[in-house]
Amino acid sequence: MSQKLKTAITPTRAEDYPEWYQQVVKASDLADRSPVRGCMVIKPWGYALWENIQRELDDMFKATGVKNAYFPIFIPLSFLEKEAEHVEGFAKECAVVTHHRLEKGADGKLVPGGLLNEPLVVRPTSETIIGDSFAKWISSHRDLPLLINQWGNVVRWEMRTRIFLRTSEFLWQEGHTAHATAAEAQERTALMLSVYTRLAEEFLAIPVIKGSKTAAERFPGAVDTQCIEAMMQDCKALQAGTSHFLGQNFAKSSNIRFQTVDETESFAWTTSWGASTRLIGGLIMTHGDDDGLILPPRMAPEQIVLLPIVHKEEDRSKVMAYTDELALALKAIHFGGRPLRVEIDRRDIGGARGWDWIKKGVPLRVEIGPRDISNQAVFVARRDKPHKDKQALPRTQFLNQVTAMLEEVQAGLLERARAFQKAHTRTIDVLDDFYAYFTPRDKEKPEIHGGFAMSHWCGDRTCEARIKEDLTVTIRCIPFDVPQEAGQCICCGGPSSQRVVFAKAY
Amino acid sequence: MSQKLKTAITPTRAEDYPEWYQQVVKASDLADRSPVRGCMVIKPWGYALWENIQRELDDMFKATGVKNAYFPIFIPLSFLEKEAEHVEGFAKECAVVTHHRLEKGADGKLVPGGLLNEPLVVRPTSETIIGDSFAKWISSHRDLPLLINQWGNVVRWEMRTRIFLRTSEFLWQEGHTAHATAAEAQERTALMLSVYTRLAEEFLAIPVIKGSKTAAERFPGAVDTQCIEAMMQDCKALQAGTSHFLGQNFAKSSNIRFQTVDETESFAWTTSWGASTRLIGGLIMTHGDDDGLILPPRMAPEQIVLLPIVHKEEDRSKVMAYTDELALALKAIHFGGRPLRVEIDRRDIGGARGWDWIKKGVPLRVEIGPRDISNQAVFVARRDKPHKDKQALPRTQFLNQVTAMLEEVQAGLLERARAFQKAHTRTIDVLDDFYAYFTPRDKEKPEIHGGFAMSHWCGDRTCEARIKEDLTVTIRCIPFDVPQEAGQCICCGGPSSQRVVFAKAY
Repeated sequence: MSQKLKTAITPTRAEDYPEWYQQVVKASDLADRSPVRGCMVIKPWGYALWENIQRELDDMFKATGVKNAYFPIFIPLSFLEKEAEHVEGFAKECAVVTHHRLEKGADGKLVPGGLLNEPLVVRPTSETIIGDSFAKWISSHRDLPLLINQWGNVVRWEMRTRIFLRTSEFLWQEGHTAHATAAEAQERTALMLSVYTRLAEEFLAIPVIKGSKTAAERFPGAVDTQCIEAMMQDCKALQAGTSHFLGQNFAKSSNIRFQTVDETESFAWTTSWGASTRLIGGLIMTHGDDDGLILPPRMAPEQIVLLPIVHKEEDRSKVMAYTDELALALKAIHFGGRPLRVEIDRRDIGGARGWDWIKKGVPLRVEIGPRDISNQAVFVARRDKPHKDKQALPRTQFLNQVTAMLEEVQAGLLERARAFQKAHTRTIDVLDDFYAYFTPRDKEKPEIHGGFAMSHWCGDRTCEARIKEDLTVTIRCIPFDVPQEAGQCICCGGPSSQRVVFAKAY
Repeated sequence: MSQKLKTAITPTRAEDYPEWYQQVVKASDLADRSPVRGCMVIKPWGYALWENIQRELDDMFKATGVKNAYFPIFIPLSFLEKEAEHVEGFAKECAVVTHHRLEKGADGKLVPGGLLNEPLVVRPTSETIIGDSFAKWISSHRDLPLLINQWGNVVRWEMRTRIFLRTSEFLWQEGHTAHATAAEAQERTALMLSVYTRLAEEFLAIPVIKGSKTAAERFPGAVDTQCIEAMMQDCKALQAGTSHFLGQNFAKSSNIRFQTVDETESFAWTTSWGASTRLIGGLIMTHGDDDGLILPPRMAPEQIVLLPIVHKEEDRSKVMAYTDELALALKAIHFGGRPLRVEIDRRDIGGARGWDWIKKGVPLRVEIGPRDISNQAVFVARRDKPHKDKQALPRTQFLNQVTAMLEEVQAGLLERARAFQKAHTRTIDVLDDFYAYFTPRDKEKPEIHGGFAMSHWCGDRTCEARIKEDLTVTIRCIPFDVPQEAGQCICCGGPSSQRVVFAKAY
């Protein structure tokens, strides 16, 4: 029907989604592979995005009484072993420090020297090492709740890595709290999930489904793992944040005890919760198009780029002065409680300049040429619209409307993603339909399949495992916001009281 | 003469300075030792201090065009070896990762498994791994200058550790820049030193001496290491920030080349610069007294603590309402461009409450009792004055004067530290005087000695080494801000053109 249009990213999403992803990461200058297996280099554009995520999360954490702290990157092997399920879950992917210096070997080359008495594991997560501090800090009910968060790096030695989504080292935050009662810890677990939901939907414009993991998919050592699950444009699910109710499991293994109000002694109830640089992968795959990244304005490192256009050298100073003045006027405007982030790109490189910013996903591009100046106008393009769709606006009108325009982009992205998720979610009650839904129609493109299936599940691990085995489809979560209704398990026909979310996942 | 007063910290500075330091760290709740050898746990009060340091530095970096990015924590051994002096400098204190999983050993216990082909070093600093990225990112003079900073953790396996001052893991920032000319790189080296100077003096209220290190004290691989040196209250020097001009050394070893304007090819000129959580140690030892920490207001996690006093239960609601209202009024006031940071301590624990905040170093403590409320007054104590020295002020006057009062505390701390440094710095021209100056008078207190000596030095490594050997005194820097004058080396009598700073150091 329509002719093939030239796109900035090759291949397109439809042609090869996984490769499209890698090309967007590259074209938008977010990150690089590194010479260290499975580790990434986060470039300034990607890191600025992470800083914005950090700032919003950090503000929300602190508003709930959480304080930041920092614990050692190394965990003694014996600590990791304290919680049996926990060490089992992480043993296969640990970076292990065995030596504390380098020495000249027999051939004069440097080799590891100074063998440690006990190997140290580079933290894959910090429950055990933070638990050790909690045990020291907590002695009375008056010390509770203890609400701590850590920003840092963790290492999980992944065999198959993909930038932002699965890397051996990644950046994240991990919250750890201790409480006097189970109810309070469960409330905190839910509260932090709502913080992640707010980050995803209000800031990243990523619609999510809130729910609990099945026992098979839980964090090793947790009693309940709650999560938010998002749908990417290849219809696969991405877990975008988790909040764990740990019961007294870690309190018992770390010996976190306290004197209760009625002077008995009790183990504390703990939670942990985390979100990582993986969110950037989710952002790319939720909003990006065949021209590259599309950034929701609240998260964009720069929300507006000004592109002064100088055809004749004699116009230069006039155009630059007008541009500088416009930047100042924009920076005096607040959006989402912060001054607008505006960049001027002064390079003389022709059309490549506009395309650079399209690929980087900046919400608004503003061209300023001599004619616009005589008309006291600007020429505005929105990243969420086709790139040729530009609008001439009087300067004053643009300044008056700019925040509304950004709000519209922000809301539009969320709405578009919601509609996509809805369009690719199906209620399925028949096993054959279920298998057909998840079976790729085209062998060349194994990634293209139905999407999310809302189906009944009896709660049995065997049914869950069979579907995973047959289709690489897992239960993403037992969602909170669906009605309780009697039904039959999609796999075995056994009784079920609600539908769960089945999907392929990152 | 005066009777011995009770102090909150035991021992006092005069009794045992090193132990006083440990006790202040503990009493102020800044940090803890950890079960991992040489690693510390930074507690919320200490981490909030670090966040304030980060925010001020980060703003200053960005104002000079620097962008943040993130690079892998692991450095392949072969990378570290690229620069000979560099690897020599760090080989003895590296944490080395040799395995990538844990396996069940013969006795069923977990042991390191999955031997890596090449050992990975946990970064002690990132010149070599960042250099690898720079080599990829830079190809033309148009890519220069490249101005990058990284916030993160580093590991240097120290045999003797002291919390904040020398720990195996610490938090820091490391800036790395590449330039087209030596002059530009040298200018950047100086610019970043001036940023550190501003942080130290204007924010931490720590007066510093700017200068260059001698060849023997330079960063391994640098052409010039510039530093700021501060004096602690035991008269020892603390290096509080360094900025290195690396010449083309690292560019050559990492192959960072670019096409120049006249189309020849050249190696880039690079710099690196860093400041760390060590600054917190410097802050403690510059301002702390025998009652604990004293925080400069610009850096304090809380600048004002409100202490509602309830003697009779019937007064409670009135006192709390007045306190809440005062907190709101204070938070609406800006100090140093940011809203005042105010905490209310509602605990009913009597006098211990005020002492907690004295030990934590909060600049202003405000007591609010029923009588103050009837008088529309507050009762204010300043941390930089004796703890009994409290002032009743009308509420309105307090609100009007509070920023001036904080400015006075901030300026007073810097002035007091400057006076201390001046009082313990001597111009010395005679070798015997020099040796006497640095020889402790009391064998029981080996830490008590003269202070800084401003003496001539001929530039010879042998003289420098002899003094270090005899007295554990080093040349802290060749200062920028002293006059050029002919003189004779304090050690050998050889010709010298300026005085340098000799001191014992952390």
